[in-house]
Amino acid sequence: MQPKFKKMLYGGDYNPNQWPKEIWDEDMKLFHQAGINSTTINVFSWAKIQPSENEYDFTELDEIVDTLTKEDVQIVMATSTGALPAWMVHRYPEVARTDFEGRHHKFGHRHNACPNSPVFQKYAKRLAEKLAERYGDNKNIVCWHISNEYGGECYCENCAKAFRVWLKDKYKTLDEVNKAWNMEFWGHTIYDWDEIVPPNDLGDGMPWGSGTAFAGMSLDYMRFNSDGMLNNYKMERDAIRKYDKETPITTNLMGTYKGLDYFKWAKEMDIVSWDNYPSYNTPWSHVAMTHDLMRGLKDAPFMLMEQTPSQQNWQPYNSLKKPGQMRAQSYQTVAHGADTIQFFQLRRSVGGCEKFHGAVIAHAGTADTRVFREVTQLGKELEKIGSRVMGSENHAKVGIIFDWENYWALEYTSGPNRDLRYVDQIEQMYNYFYNKNIAVDMIPIDADFSKYDLVAAPVLYMVKDGVAESLEAYVQAGGTLITTYMSGIVGQSDNVHLGGYPGPLRKMAGVWVEEIDALAPEQRNKIRFADGTEEECRLVCDLMHLEGAEEIAQYESDFYAGMTAVAKNQFGKGTVYYVGTDLSESGLAKVLAMAADSAAIQPVIGEATALEITKRQADGEDLYFIINFKDEEIPLPAVFDGKEDILTGEKVQGGEMLKKYGLRIVSVPRA
Amino acid sequence: MQPKFKKMLYGGDYNPNQWPKEIWDEDMKLFHQAGINSTTINVFSWAKIQPSENEYDFTELDEIVDTLTKEDVQIVMATSTGALPAWMVHRYPEVARTDFEGRHHKFGHRHNACPNSPVFQKYAKRLAEKLAERYGDNKNIVCWHISNEYGGECYCENCAKAFRVWLKDKYKTLDEVNKAWNMEFWGHTIYDWDEIVPPNDLGDGMPWGSGTAFAGMSLDYMRFNSDGMLNNYKMERDAIRKYDKETPITTNLMGTYKGLDYFKWAKEMDIVSWDNYPSYNTPWSHVAMTHDLMRGLKDAPFMLMEQTPSQQNWQPYNSLKKPGQMRAQSYQTVAHGADTIQFFQLRRSVGGCEKFHGAVIAHAGTADTRVFREVTQLGKELEKIGSRVMGSENHAKVGIIFDWENYWALEYTSGPNRDLRYVDQIEQMYNYFYNKNIAVDMIPIDADFSKYDLVAAPVLYMVKDGVAESLEAYVQAGGTLITTYMSGIVGQSDNVHLGGYPGPLRKMAGVWVEEIDALAPEQRNKIRFADGTEEECRLVCDLMHLEGAEEIAQYESDFYAGMTAVAKNQFGKGTVYYVGTDLSESGLAKVLAMAADSAAIQPVIGEATALEITKRQADGEDLYFIINFKDEEIPLPAVFDGKEDILTGEKVQGGEMLKKYGLRIVSVPRA
Amino acid sequence: MQPKFKKMLYGGDYNPNQWPKEIWDEDMKLFHQAGINSTTINVFSWAKIQPSENEYDFTELDEIVDTLTKEDVQIVMATSTGALPAWMVHRYPEVARTDFEGRHHKFGHRHNACPNSPVFQKYAKRLAEKLAERYGDNKNIVCWHISNEYGGECYCENCAKAFRVWLKDKYKTLDEVNKAWNMEFWGHTIYDWDEIVPPNDLGDGMPWGSGTAFAGMSLDYMRFNSDGMLNNYKMERDAIRKYDKETPITTNLMGTYKGLDYFKWAKEMDIVSWDNYPSYNTPWSHVAMTHDLMRGLKDAPFMLMEQTPSQQNWQPYNSLKKPGQMRAQSYQTVAHGADTIQFFQLRRSVGGCEKFHGAVIAHAGTADTRVFREVTQLGKELEKIGSRVMGSENHAKVGIIFDWENYWALEYTSGPNRDLRYVDQIEQMYNYFYNKNIAVDMIPIDADFSKYDLVAAPVLYMVKDGVAESLEAYVQAGGTLITTYMSGIVGQSDNVHLGGYPGPLRKMAGVWVEEIDALAPEQRNKIRFADGTEEECRLVCDLMHLEGAEEIAQYESDFYAGMTAVAKNQFGKGTVYYVGTDLSESGLAKVLAMAADSAAIQPVIGEATALEITKRQADGEDLYFIINFKDEEIPLPAVFDGKEDILTGEKVQGGEMLKKYGLRIVSVPRA
Repeated sequence: MQPKFKKMLYGGDYNPNQWPKEIWDEDMKLFHQAGINSTTINVFSWAKIQPSENEYDFTELDEIVDTLTKEDVQIVMATSTGALPAWMVHRYPEVARTDFEGRHHKFGHRHNACPNSPVFQKYAKRLAEKLAERYGDNKNIVCWHISNEYGGECYCENCAKAFRVWLKDKYKTLDEVNKAWNMEFWGHTIYDWDEIVPPNDLGDGMPWGSGTAFAGMSLDYMRFNSDGMLNNYKMERDAIRKYDKETPITTNLMGTYKGLDYFKWAKEMDIVSWDNYPSYNTPWSHVAMTHDLMRGLKDAPFMLMEQTPSQQNWQPYNSLKKPGQMRAQSYQTVAHGADTIQFFQLRRSVGGCEKFHGAVIAHAGTADTRVFREVTQLGKELEKIGSRVMGSENHAKVGIIFDWENYWALEYTSGPNRDLRYVDQIEQMYNYFYNKNIAVDMIPIDADFSKYDLVAAPVLYMVKDGVAESLEAYVQAGGTLITTYMSGIVGQSDNVHLGGYPGPLRKMAGVWVEEIDALAPEQRNKIRFADGTEEECRLVCDLMHLEGAEEIAQYESDFYAGMTAVAKNQFGKGTVYYVGTDLSESGLAKVLAMAADSAAIQPVIGEATALEITKRQADGEDLYFIINFKDEEIPLPAVFDGKEDILTGEKVQGGEMLKKYGLRIVSVPRA
Repeated sequence: MQPKFKKMLYGGDYNPNQWPKEIWDEDMKLFHQAGINSTTINVFSWAKIQPSENEYDFTELDEIVDTLTKEDVQIVMATSTGALPAWMVHRYPEVARTDFEGRHHKFGHRHNACPNSPVFQKYAKRLAEKLAERYGDNKNIVCWHISNEYGGECYCENCAKAFRVWLKDKYKTLDEVNKAWNMEFWGHTIYDWDEIVPPNDLGDGMPWGSGTAFAGMSLDYMRFNSDGMLNNYKMERDAIRKYDKETPITTNLMGTYKGLDYFKWAKEMDIVSWDNYPSYNTPWSHVAMTHDLMRGLKDAPFMLMEQTPSQQNWQPYNSLKKPGQMRAQSYQTVAHGADTIQFFQLRRSVGGCEKFHGAVIAHAGTADTRVFREVTQLGKELEKIGSRVMGSENHAKVGIIFDWENYWALEYTSGPNRDLRYVDQIEQMYNYFYNKNIAVDMIPIDADFSKYDLVAAPVLYMVKDGVAESLEAYVQAGGTLITTYMSGIVGQSDNVHLGGYPGPLRKMAGVWVEEIDALAPEQRNKIRFADGTEEECRLVCDLMHLEGAEEIAQYESDFYAGMTAVAKNQFGKGTVYYVGTDLSESGLAKVLAMAADSAAIQPVIGEATALEITKRQADGEDLYFIINFKDEEIPLPAVFDGKEDILTGEKVQGGEMLKKYGLRIVSVPRA
Repeated sequence: MQPKFKKMLYGGDYNPNQWPKEIWDEDMKLFHQAGINSTTINVFSWAKIQPSENEYDFTELDEIVDTLTKEDVQIVMATSTGALPAWMVHRYPEVARTDFEGRHHKFGHRHNACPNSPVFQKYAKRLAEKLAERYGDNKNIVCWHISNEYGGECYCENCAKAFRVWLKDKYKTLDEVNKAWNMEFWGHTIYDWDEIVPPNDLGDGMPWGSGTAFAGMSLDYMRFNSDGMLNNYKMERDAIRKYDKETPITTNLMGTYKGLDYFKWAKEMDIVSWDNYPSYNTPWSHVAMTHDLMRGLKDAPFMLMEQTPSQQNWQPYNSLKKPGQMRAQSYQTVAHGADTIQFFQLRRSVGGCEKFHGAVIAHAGTADTRVFREVTQLGKELEKIGSRVMGSENHAKVGIIFDWENYWALEYTSGPNRDLRYVDQIEQMYNYFYNKNIAVDMIPIDADFSKYDLVAAPVLYMVKDGVAESLEAYVQAGGTLITTYMSGIVGQSDNVHLGGYPGPLRKMAGVWVEEIDALAPEQRNKIRFADGTEEECRLVCDLMHLEGAEEIAQYESDFYAGMTAVAKNQFGKGTVYYVGTDLSESGLAKVLAMAADSAAIQPVIGEATALEITKRQADGEDLYFIINFKDEEIPLPAVFDGKEDILTGEKVQGGEMLKKYGLRIVSVPRA
């Protein structure tokens, strides 16, 4: 069951060890002034708590916890295992990572532990245990936060050994490994488990994202690495559960971060939390998609664990958020399913590489700043509406499949076009629905498709066992499926589904793809629809033959002019759309409009508008989050006329103008 | 004597170990259907044949050979030493390479053996021996193919030791080494052989192509590396020869690949073979030049060992070959001297990084594909004309010098302009003759120049002992020589020929180059010819003084406006053209037209045309390969009117239009 | 006391070991012919002098010294420690460096010694001693030149140990280290000195110039590295002083080279010398600034140790110097304070990577070259005017602060804008004064500001203890100070001055900067002055509040339109200008014109001109160096009418035209 906080957490990272106690008192006053009711603490304090191998010292943490408890500030308690203590690396060099280039690291940075180091595991587990034992019954601790932003990889000897064990567990025999990875190719046949080398720069590997000599091996290493870190997470989680049976446990994820299979992780997390750091030029649709993905991980409300009140420090150009922008971004987050709003960070550090990262309290140390005032306004608003919003649900009839294993496989592939990127492809499809204010769920490959009227599976390159069957069942029962070029190509180990593309999807798509052309960046083709309209396409062009499907559009040029570029196939009671090339935004919109129409997909409101409108269903009412992310003023749709804005209590007027970052949260009672 | 196959090989790489035997039977049928009569097998099977140190297992290879023999498919038998078995790297880490960055590698990839590893040598030799002993008398084996695409370098301790031995052999004393490399510079004097460090990132080296602290040392390492791999080749060749005295032996080369001195290699090969992989935007003239170079290695017909039937997988944008393109490319290959056409690969792999590399048989596994049909058409044609073409000769009166040592030396040089590239410069000159359909031989620096009426030696930076003398003799006897800026600068160890540029070429060129200016990419100069026409130049500008030569063109701007930019010198009965700057295409064409005219160079046919026309002299007839590589239709020259097209048996008509990739092979009986 | 040479050194690097003795005699003749009166010798001869551990051989050096002494050529004697002998690296691998990536190097290149290697130190010291003992009383040796172009860094274990000692010496306790580096951040607290890892790629470091996890640690490593090499210098200097008490000792610096704190170094040098290698597109203002910086190091005339007579070899495009350019460049050097003109190199090497580096004597080996003639002309001129110029002084009323520690700190900072570069910012300000022919001193952060009417401190990011106080005192006493955005942010360890930007400068600037916006490269803002004129700005925009200052200009757009962008504050008897954003050249010029006017700053002459005019004050006369670096002709200002040109002895005419690279050195007697 999804945990629900008593009140909406509003606060963020707090690291008071860096400054004297006088400042703590000042902080508490400022928190209350700003409506901040929670802090995330103890994120990077391992070295402080455990100053040497056999010594633990909770004095300072006790003081922090006491101070916050006295002030009734809720606490998200981190376990501090996201950064190793210097003494541990010095004493046990194995706890540090060996990088892709084969270099064993010394002490430095963070997210730096070898996930397979027994020494790291021993002390991480012990630390989580001690924290839970000491603070597990503190009622102000409302959430445990394990480690921090898990990520990266290690290629040391410990990892090589653990990889071999993982493989033995998965494949049982070397014959199966050789077959899975097609090791006959280039004569790589393995006769002894110890001959397996992790795919890195000194072995068969090439850096993430580009090609690899044996994609099957690289895929397995990605799975192994994701699993290994997940084991680290579970180990700490279970240690905490010995002493605290109830408080929800999470770790902060990073949106579309490639390295970890978050759908698999979410199954082990009580609640999903994540860190949202768009750049100055990130489209708002991208942010919306990422929120939907994070909500989709457990199909439930999530925590926003981090965002900056104003600027970042680590991007090339760390622009300020404009007045109102942080507020609009926060409500977008809530609209897409967040039940908390938390900042990194509450007070700017005096030193270290993030000292210019935005904070609620600036280096000036005063409440008299624009940022503090904006945080305060939002704090008061959330205090007012928080409990009315929390736990409300987002529902969608469109599902877009996001599959980390497919993400890895597609981007490990050598050919046909190196510019093909997984998240780009997902995003192109998402954007159509976003622009129409059609609610979307981001769903895993093993989702219950029957909940959806339309399922999109762009570049479903890897079709694992059972996937084609479940998609067929979905379509046969009346569902609408959209898929594209570079789908149905390989199985779970990156070996090709022989017999003709799109392999196991061929039957339901009603097409056979004979060849796949690649267009260079300066090249374009065009497609023509039955109504004579033309649209551009690029990147990849399937040369396909209809096997029962009907043509939606055909190519206009090159030697395959006249061949089908987009096809539609009736299959059982449902329909499959197959898009054979990378269409322009307007071209893709035409195809998706057809599919959405035939699946009777409805937007959140009937009226077209450039406003972002998202609906959460609360008890007895629908809450519409209406936000203007455009540069020009936009009128409020007429449908909301006379409805209550829960922020102001006013009745809103259809046609009233919303400026950039202007917003309304409107309640419509549900019958 | 150049070996000649009984029939023109048409086939390619075949790696049936990857799939079950049912498929083998299907393959045989498809081969016959497509006219495929040969396969290259056993390229990467070392691990399969030798599963451990003392165990050899030829069961599967026997089956493959039997299957092919039964079907009377010719066999190019590879020795499999192009990729190490995993067990060998695991057991003897020394067999793997240490890279330029100083990192010793583990098991991975291919082309991965340290050429100086005694362990590698022992087992590679033994494997070649065993293969020859077992299969040496199989009549279907028409060629041995040693290793695969030799290349790369190693910088391990074994190599360092072997380098020192190689140097001792070459220089005898350390004094000579110090002098050759000018080690006084930066105080690098060596007093003990063991102080010599291979020029890599941890020593004196900088990556191939860019500058180096001691070019003489880097040059010697290139020579040593090329020789070391050649020794690997010779070792296997000699091992085969113990059991098979006759079958020709080759290895597949890679065109203008920089790392190996192919003219030196060709002396040890019975027949040259190479792999032709143009990109979607490689000019056809470049491909033609590379064929001419490969033919020039032994001045004899060569094997095309690999090309793709349609697309590649490892380029950034792996476009399909258009209909007719593969056929046109194949005939271009034959036109320039190939006696075989072979594909990589006959059937697409199910997995591994080349699974999207084009193949005769697609993943669909059927004959019903465009590619298979095109392969079949070509197969039938080659069956018809193959024996008529094989062994015919290409003749040319223009020779362009291509010298790997000069290539290395020029690109190791620090200054004057980092954009100066050897192959570009060769290609600029080649293109003039290509566009005129003037036959060209690509020749080594020690060629017999007397066969040519015109010899071009662009950027002949390194003039080794004896070279000036043989060029002088050639010119004095009436030859025409064209050379350029950055010629005659250094001797064989990259030490400058003192006394004024172009050093030993100064006398015959009749010019003294006082200074060499470098133009940045945004800078241009102009030259003016005697007739008042102007042309642009760039990159490098010699400031030269005439010493007997006559001026052809002079600079128009900068402080050296009015100085000679291009000169012509009578020397003995011949003429030397000296081009002092990097001319525009049209500018260079003017100078080369003068030189070609005065040397009475004739194109293949008198009529100017945009068609590529190449002539091979067969028994009693000249075969003209006429191919349209342009986007527009082009008429067949009148001179061919009424002659036989050997593909169709028809008489062709002068003026008939050839479309893009359209072609004729016309026979003209020789008096 | 600043040393003064008896005659102006005119010559350069001479490395005759590379060629036979016959050539030496030829060289001597050519030197005399060209007016060359000095050579720098023995720069890279360690391996020659000390061929093995216990053997020294001065035979060849004796011959060189004898030859030069006989010919009465002055000698700058180098100590040869800039490149290790091969035998030493072979025998004691520790003497080589470990690079930033953690790789220990083998023998190669130069500037290759680990500064903290006891073996290196032992032998370097012994070599310097032996040289001084042997040649210390040679009267022709007019200067000692230690090592060569100190630079680079090492990250080996020896350095790690030395770093810890350096830190213990600086901070005494680990608590102080943890505090200085804010090690609480990311839980990096150190409990043992041995846990400290030098900030490199395997630890906490990131490459120079980009961000770093702990800037305080990286800053200390920069200081430590600069100090360590300075200790190497001092060790050799002191060794020489045992035997030679008088001859000035120097080492050749490299302008704005980032790695070493040259102001600290200059205190240990008898005279500053440096190597001037502008590229083909380096602005002349940049060269002028760098000369002023090198003069500023000791506030005294300096040596030009190296420049090329014509081209370089190691730049991407090594253009020739045009006729007159080398002469103009040389006089610019003298104008800005040089008392010597020396070339690298006197004769071009026969081999090695600098063989295409320009030289007085070309590979042609003759005097009959343009370059030799230009060198000869200059030689004769300097012979005539040298003693009249030497020791004369440059004076300025404008000081621009250049602070290496600030340079490091600013560029280590993560945020707000990665395109912000220290030297660029200094140069923008310098250029204004340069274009007005206003003399500028480049001054250290601890300069005596009272000498100046105007002090500029662009991006004074790091304000160390005492700096604000001395700047306040300067302004209160009537000085004019200009500072900018990103000033006053941190203290000496990169910890923020809390309480509001610009920290300790806030009071005197009369502004509070609440936020700092970053503009991406494609973004711009505008500012408007009181007179309504507008100027563009970019990169960084301070959002500031006036606290007593008056507004000079305000922003035109973004949400902070109308806020102050440039402010001016009366403070005591003086004025502070605070420029809150990166202005266009014309925008900055407006602000600086205001400041210069109010500070009554005068250019060298009253008349505006595009000529570069610099003044050196000699005994009883002012020498004006008037040079045209522009493409068009420019008239000589009227003020010089009738004054003596010391080169020609003629009276010059106001209004006479100077061509590009034309110049006059005019004497105006001083009252």
